[in-house]
Amino acid sequence: MSVYLHDIPLAQARARLEEALRQAGLWGVLDAESIALDENALGRVLAETAWAKVSSPHYHASAMDGFAVEAASTAGARPSAPIQLAVGEGPAPRTAYVDTGDPLPEWADAVIPIENVEALDASGAMSQDIRHPATVRIRAAVTPWSHVRPLGEDIVATQLVLPRGHILRPVDLGALAAAGYRRLEVSRRPRVAILPTGTELVPLGSELKPGDIPEYNSLVLAAQIKEMGGEAERFPITVDNLELITQRVRDAERNFDLILLNAGSSAGAEDFSSRVVAALGRLLVHGVAVRPGHPVILGMLDIEPGKSIPIIGVPGYPVSAALTVDIFVEPLIAMWLGRPPRELPTEPARLTRKITSPAGDEDYVRVAVGRVGENLLAAPLARGAGVITSLVQADGLVVLPPGVQGVEAGEAVTVRLYRSRAELEETIVCIGSHDLTLDLLAQFLAERSRRLVTSNVGSQGGLVALKRGEAHLAGSHLLDPDTGEFNISYIRQYMPGMPVKVVALAGREQGLIVRPGNPKHIRSLADLSRPDVKFVNRQRGAGTRVLLDYHLKQQGISSASIRGYNQEEYTHLGVAAAVASGRADCGLAISAAAQALQLDFVPLFQERYDLVIPKRYADSELLAPLFDVLHEGRFREGVAQLPGYDISVMGTLIVEDQ
Amino acid sequence: MSVYLHDIPLAQARARLEEALRQAGLWGVLDAESIALDENALGRVLAETAWAKVSSPHYHASAMDGFAVEAASTAGARPSAPIQLAVGEGPAPRTAYVDTGDPLPEWADAVIPIENVEALDASGAMSQDIRHPATVRIRAAVTPWSHVRPLGEDIVATQLVLPRGHILRPVDLGALAAAGYRRLEVSRRPRVAILPTGTELVPLGSELKPGDIPEYNSLVLAAQIKEMGGEAERFPITVDNLELITQRVRDAERNFDLILLNAGSSAGAEDFSSRVVAALGRLLVHGVAVRPGHPVILGMLDIEPGKSIPIIGVPGYPVSAALTVDIFVEPLIAMWLGRPPRELPTEPARLTRKITSPAGDEDYVRVAVGRVGENLLAAPLARGAGVITSLVQADGLVVLPPGVQGVEAGEAVTVRLYRSRAELEETIVCIGSHDLTLDLLAQFLAERSRRLVTSNVGSQGGLVALKRGEAHLAGSHLLDPDTGEFNISYIRQYMPGMPVKVVALAGREQGLIVRPGNPKHIRSLADLSRPDVKFVNRQRGAGTRVLLDYHLKQQGISSASIRGYNQEEYTHLGVAAAVASGRADCGLAISAAAQALQLDFVPLFQERYDLVIPKRYADSELLAPLFDVLHEGRFREGVAQLPGYDISVMGTLIVEDQ
Repeated sequence: MSVYLHDIPLAQARARLEEALRQAGLWGVLDAESIALDENALGRVLAETAWAKVSSPHYHASAMDGFAVEAASTAGARPSAPIQLAVGEGPAPRTAYVDTGDPLPEWADAVIPIENVEALDASGAMSQDIRHPATVRIRAAVTPWSHVRPLGEDIVATQLVLPRGHILRPVDLGALAAAGYRRLEVSRRPRVAILPTGTELVPLGSELKPGDIPEYNSLVLAAQIKEMGGEAERFPITVDNLELITQRVRDAERNFDLILLNAGSSAGAEDFSSRVVAALGRLLVHGVAVRPGHPVILGMLDIEPGKSIPIIGVPGYPVSAALTVDIFVEPLIAMWLGRPPRELPTEPARLTRKITSPAGDEDYVRVAVGRVGENLLAAPLARGAGVITSLVQADGLVVLPPGVQGVEAGEAVTVRLYRSRAELEETIVCIGSHDLTLDLLAQFLAERSRRLVTSNVGSQGGLVALKRGEAHLAGSHLLDPDTGEFNISYIRQYMPGMPVKVVALAGREQGLIVRPGNPKHIRSLADLSRPDVKFVNRQRGAGTRVLLDYHLKQQGISSASIRGYNQEEYTHLGVAAAVASGRADCGLAISAAAQALQLDFVPLFQERYDLVIPKRYADSELLAPLFDVLHEGRFREGVAQLPGYDISVMGTLIVEDQ
Repeated sequence: MSVYLHDIPLAQARARLEEALRQAGLWGVLDAESIALDENALGRVLAETAWAKVSSPHYHASAMDGFAVEAASTAGARPSAPIQLAVGEGPAPRTAYVDTGDPLPEWADAVIPIENVEALDASGAMSQDIRHPATVRIRAAVTPWSHVRPLGEDIVATQLVLPRGHILRPVDLGALAAAGYRRLEVSRRPRVAILPTGTELVPLGSELKPGDIPEYNSLVLAAQIKEMGGEAERFPITVDNLELITQRVRDAERNFDLILLNAGSSAGAEDFSSRVVAALGRLLVHGVAVRPGHPVILGMLDIEPGKSIPIIGVPGYPVSAALTVDIFVEPLIAMWLGRPPRELPTEPARLTRKITSPAGDEDYVRVAVGRVGENLLAAPLARGAGVITSLVQADGLVVLPPGVQGVEAGEAVTVRLYRSRAELEETIVCIGSHDLTLDLLAQFLAERSRRLVTSNVGSQGGLVALKRGEAHLAGSHLLDPDTGEFNISYIRQYMPGMPVKVVALAGREQGLIVRPGNPKHIRSLADLSRPDVKFVNRQRGAGTRVLLDYHLKQQGISSASIRGYNQEEYTHLGVAAAVASGRADCGLAISAAAQALQLDFVPLFQERYDLVIPKRYADSELLAPLFDVLHEGRFREGVAQLPGYDISVMGTLIVEDQ
């Protein structure tokens, strides 16, 4: 049994699938179906070229409420030389009242709006009924076809209304109705079966034991298929058993256009997908040089002579699964529907952090994107294929071609954008220390058309990023051991010559997070040196680490004496999770993080968390809502309710350079 | 009764509606409902801030198939100094096999991938069962947490997953599932009643008599509401009768959040909307300074004490109706759903044609947009509020503010784009003479990811536009009376110094379109001078007009002798429509246009229709598919089937400058 997969290039994998689909007669639009022209046609793809069956309007229609006339009979009318037209079907000069939309009498070729005539009764006096006078007097001539919507003004029978392959929008439905359509030929929605497999999978909502994995890939995949214009059916979970999986595929293969088998596409002991595909048809590809998602399977199921359908073995990690569907299924659904494949708009951007990439693979890197000053910046998100939040937070993808083994920080890259440029222009990029209030701030800013994108690199990392022009603001809580003051001296050190505005976000309590009931009786920093205590630290440059080192020094405690001093987490919640899981007995963090995971907390120090904002952004329209939020009662209450937060300093101006 | 409306500025109209909605307690998110977390949640708007209920993974999970170890026990392992680990739960150094996703034993903090160990049986030989050996030998140390997905790697309980107001995408559903959600609180879809009114309206599919208007506004409006995230219900047509319309509104008002009354919103004799609104509640606004769509009504229906809902009187012309819904209803639905209002991306562009605008009105001008060379060009489409195809063809809107009375050709404008920039980059702008084959060409280019945007300004107009850099190519069939040759001399005259490539599109027959059976026995140009014959001409600069004038001169016929010589149409089909409707007895056009409207045709001349392409575009990637199509069998057959077309010249190179 092979442990390794031999990955082939993406283009080659696609070519093999194309060839197999061509042979099976599945390369092109699947087929059409007739549907009623109603609001459910929205988003469907036209399978026929729509030529107009009738003209619209189908007669010469008055465009105003007024009087229909023969333009020629109005010639010479002037203010000083009015012309009188008799109402009725008599000889010219004649006229007739018409409402907007009424057909013109056969003899008429223009309409005079009602407000431009004098309506007279039989005696020559002003008529009481402006719509039914005996005669009308006019004081200006009109040109032929004025205030008339001539036959075919909108649509002339036989003209092209919409091309085949067009995705129907609301106004298209109106135009097709106007052109005489009652039913439409649209592409049939491809039917996709989604088969989750895996003994470790449990349905959503199950009580979770260690080792259980909630099955939600099928949900994401079904929603992707639906968004693409297909129809998805989610099957129940099948355990890792060759016969059961084979039977499940057999059950599905006759009623669908495509089967997605998720997962078991790798080469492990319990990865049966490739064997199932080989048994029921042909294994075309096993392993494609893309990351994440390389253990993908492409195959054809041979159902009966002359009838085959494609099957795709989708890798199990959620990011791999979603990207596999984007890469292989989207173009297939697009072709089967006859619509253009979805293409993400691209923009040039500057990478904020170095990334490395496996040689030979096409690498899909999720990035957060924001515009800071002149630069569009792309910040790489978590790379792990298991981190679905990296797709949730992604504003775009940077795709590194197979030849590229890495990109340095600051280099130019092309980003495929999930978001509109307008959204990116409303994005506030915040970098630095992590704090729970930033999540709350993000929520309040969202209500004010601002998107807060945060990335957690620690307080010093945030100031360095500001200096490099990579963020609009940074969250920082760096204690100066000499002055006992927060942030200022660090700002001057890391951002020399850059004028800033510093505003306090909140005061907060730092202390030791311990397991419920504090089983190891940890009370102070001195306890960290105990041999039975395993500590978890924050990363170098984090404000919390500076705070720890300051107090260790003050208390004469050597970091070498602390077990786990070099074990680093990047967020407060990471520290809490380490304690909750037993990886550590304690860690220094804010009390909110302890409460979040139902842990106990030993309060030790008070500190101030500030927002550091370069002056050039502090007064921008982009950041204006941020200052509003700091003074909004609902936000202040929300922060006050977080344990260990002091809002009395919130919004206080600490420094404002000129 | 007022004949005029007093239009108020848009901002004022909106403010009045806002005030009334605030009083009614309808300013904000309507309310929430609980739905299952499944693929139907796609596109719904979160009504709650989603904080993670559980962590994901909720345990330390192996990221590989391999052996779980205590990292500390691997210290010192080197190729020359391997370490052996006993499989099982004995004392350290110990190890245990884990599959990807399995929980780590409590004592383990790292995983060594299976391919990096030597599995040994009890005798010290290589084990036959690599997953169940007695011991494993390793030749390298591992660091803590390598090949492990620690608890909370993806999501830490209590962290922000998604903010309130977020529109759910496929990956969001996965992240919410991973964060422990089974149900979601989402904003309830606003319910909108659409009430078509009008005695002239007939249901779609009815046999049409003059004066009948097929009712399709409700279809467009319902689709718009659906696209916005609301739920629309279309009511049957109500005739223009105050009591019936009042009753209809009463029937609807208790079950909906908003009523759209279409139309009757103007001030004519049969415009009852304002009276209905005044009778059942309060008329807030009647007439807003926007074009098209100014006779809009905003009001509140007072249903019972403390309960009111808004009603909007939507103008009847289809363009007015659709824009009214975009302008007034979209922001309302967005607010009720708690999502951001839809904002079209904008781009600067250059206007190709002068437009004038009524003073004091905010004017929504539909434009076709394409990039030609360095310039994004916006070409104004038909301005009539009845021309729904102008919305179908629109790539964007140019909105002229109330103070602006017009914009000159060539001036800079801001376009609100319906299309992505990628689509605009794939747009071929064709201007000039109209020909039916261009519609067919558009269809074939659409299949090749090219969008053909045509505008019909006549052959000479097309050459002038090319000279001004406003199009990629022009269709032209200008006969030189001196040489008898087509186009070349005109190209040199109108585009001096601009190198071109000229390719023949087709030969075609020109002749006189006459009513079926040719009741006036028109046989030649000489018949045009007969007093009983009414002619319809093409506009100045049209190739067909040049052809006519050439032959009139040759035959010594004075244009002054022709009744209708000055009556101009802009397309072949326009000429045919004029004959079909009886506005004229005959007109010079191509035979396809006659057949389109089931008219008879008197063939007179052969001509050649060319595509004129400036060299700088002729060799571009953008236009490459155009030349492919000219040589494609299916396209040639399609053109050959059009009456009067000769494809033998198709694709022939007429001129290619260097």
